[in-house]
Amino acid sequence: MLKQIAGWLTAPQGFVAAGVKAGVKRSGKEDVAVILSTVPAAAGAVFTQNKMCAAPVLVSRKVAQEPYAQAIVVNSGCANACTGEQGLLDAVDMQATAAELLAIEQEKIYVCSTGVIGQFLPMDKIKTGIADAIDNLDEQEGESAALAIQTTDTFVKRAAYEFILGGKIVRIAGIAKGSGMIHPNMATMLTFITTDAAISPDVLKRTVKAVADLSFNMVVVDGDTSTNDTMIVLANGLAENEIILSEKHPDYVTFFEALLVVAQDLAKLIARDGEGATKFLEVQVTGAKSFADAKSAAMAICKSPLVKTAFFGKDPNWGRIVCAAGYSGAELNADKVSLSIGGIKLVENGLNVGVPLTSLSGIMEEHDISLTIDLAVGDAKATVWTCDFSYDYVKINAEYHT
Amino acid sequence: MLKQIAGWLTAPQGFVAAGVKAGVKRSGKEDVAVILSTVPAAAGAVFTQNKMCAAPVLVSRKVAQEPYAQAIVVNSGCANACTGEQGLLDAVDMQATAAELLAIEQEKIYVCSTGVIGQFLPMDKIKTGIADAIDNLDEQEGESAALAIQTTDTFVKRAAYEFILGGKIVRIAGIAKGSGMIHPNMATMLTFITTDAAISPDVLKRTVKAVADLSFNMVVVDGDTSTNDTMIVLANGLAENEIILSEKHPDYVTFFEALLVVAQDLAKLIARDGEGATKFLEVQVTGAKSFADAKSAAMAICKSPLVKTAFFGKDPNWGRIVCAAGYSGAELNADKVSLSIGGIKLVENGLNVGVPLTSLSGIMEEHDISLTIDLAVGDAKATVWTCDFSYDYVKINAEYHT
Repeated sequence: MLKQIAGWLTAPQGFVAAGVKAGVKRSGKEDVAVILSTVPAAAGAVFTQNKMCAAPVLVSRKVAQEPYAQAIVVNSGCANACTGEQGLLDAVDMQATAAELLAIEQEKIYVCSTGVIGQFLPMDKIKTGIADAIDNLDEQEGESAALAIQTTDTFVKRAAYEFILGGKIVRIAGIAKGSGMIHPNMATMLTFITTDAAISPDVLKRTVKAVADLSFNMVVVDGDTSTNDTMIVLANGLAENEIILSEKHPDYVTFFEALLVVAQDLAKLIARDGEGATKFLEVQVTGAKSFADAKSAAMAICKSPLVKTAFFGKDPNWGRIVCAAGYSGAELNADKVSLSIGGIKLVENGLNVGVPLTSLSGIMEEHDISLTIDLAVGDAKATVWTCDFSYDYVKINAEYHT
Repeated sequence: MLKQIAGWLTAPQGFVAAGVKAGVKRSGKEDVAVILSTVPAAAGAVFTQNKMCAAPVLVSRKVAQEPYAQAIVVNSGCANACTGEQGLLDAVDMQATAAELLAIEQEKIYVCSTGVIGQFLPMDKIKTGIADAIDNLDEQEGESAALAIQTTDTFVKRAAYEFILGGKIVRIAGIAKGSGMIHPNMATMLTFITTDAAISPDVLKRTVKAVADLSFNMVVVDGDTSTNDTMIVLANGLAENEIILSEKHPDYVTFFEALLVVAQDLAKLIARDGEGATKFLEVQVTGAKSFADAKSAAMAICKSPLVKTAFFGKDPNWGRIVCAAGYSGAELNADKVSLSIGGIKLVENGLNVGVPLTSLSGIMEEHDISLTIDLAVGDAKATVWTCDFSYDYVKINAEYHT
């Protein structure tokens, strides 16, 4: 039984954090943060698949090969992407600076950046910021750390839960940033999750990958995969539950589900905060041949500018939705496809049911809208979350110049 | 040597056409057309890959298996898609009606529809329209046929050329519709090309596929693949050039290039007429490992809402462009990538060259803008054409209801 709790990344035992104003962001807001586990934590991470990935991603990929990690050092305002050799040196320098001040091994420190692409980090400011954040590390500073990873998010994205694992109280908490890209060239999603659960590094790494595939990898705003996307999970074991050494451990499912809930909570918040969003859309594909097919169809629907603008216009334009499923590459039975919006069936056996579209006007006025499409060829299903496509999306991305 | 000429699909010898107002379109404009070769013509066609393809596509796919064809019957205003068994009967009925009146074999007649998805064809109007069009068939009626395939295109798309093949004067002409989707649920590209060149059906079919891959398949407006896309080429041989029986024939390259020019002309016109377009963008990817990689990278750039809104905003936002190439799946050398907009190099060896972006303001004001990105891993290249993404795109697709 998961119970929602207050608090930030510092809610699980043994985690401290701080965010400070280092002057990287033009706005003068928090822009450098350090998150620390007081003891080494089992660590798992996944990163962007973008081949133009940022320097900190290259550095953090190496950290992710280690079983344990202990800290995350992060800045916003500058992505340190497309910065070549110098960018790599700067990312390592962030890591080294934190390692020296924290007196922990450099290879146990993840490095993340988010912000403008193609500019070098202002290293003087960054290093001063890291030192200030480390001076301020505290269990009460979780919120400042959450603020320091934001760029143009319109609200802070957090999730925190308590649950029982092998008779012990375990806490898990996460923060995320992303989907607000009001300043051009920002296209980054970062999420950090802490827990005091005890789990082996190997099992955690596999779990993080599996959970990412069912949460952050199921969210789409505009189809643009960023250069800096990073998800990091630290599990320091201070809850003292019997350590989970394999997926067969009786507590594994409980842990998996807790991590999944936190990740899905944060992923949905990112879709809700999509640029210019006026709607939150949950698209479920059922009856697919495979999960990959179900996801392809749901993603095609969620990425389609024609579908997204229709929802902005409050128009239950089902032709665009089945058309997107049709070109997604997913197998489907065109003569058996069915589609519902807000629980009202519009298409059955591939044909218009004939429901007057005006009967959906109440549903289309809602902020949260769900739609389900059955491909009628199997049992696999997938759910993807997205937002609509409004004038403000164009405004945000066209009118603010580099 | 290709020479541009005036005229429509009826410019090549032996082709007649007509478009009539049958009352399918609410606007009352031309909506049914018949195109006829007075003698059987070698025929090649390619169709949408969308699995929710329309009934006329299913019928025309069978026609495409025949070596020769003689006519095309087409309506706009209703796509006859998502119409099940009845839709299939209606498409066959269109074919049969034309066959009887023209006194030619049914399996030699292509059928096409474009317009709203999910509605049945008004068969009385369609059949009366087919009869009227056949009554009006004439060499002078090419324009009315071109008008009858339009939905919300803002201009008529045509191309016509004359060239010499084996000492004979040959003509080739084409029309296309597409990319204007002001009325929701319209998402169709149709193109018909006629020529009096003599070429064997087998060679023509292979050539049509190859040419489609370098023309219509290299255009993207919003990434939504329609249910009705169709390209048909009829070659009736009346120019009496020595028939091209294989790709090794000395005249083959000349014919291939003429067909490619017509198809690329029409494809570019579709991008120019993209919904809400204020810019025409030509994106060339060079230095790729393969043509497929070059196309993937160019398509990712051309589909990216972030790139398209930046061009609408006249912002040379190169970070978004290299980011899109990075997530396209194409192999690239991140430390060697270079990028130019309008001939001005902005990125070299993966790094910002430092050109002041204000120096591009003249280029960004232009209607036609080219950009080139070198992936630095091979010799393959590809060019994709698209348009920008404006407030009017959202307006067109959100405000006009089903």
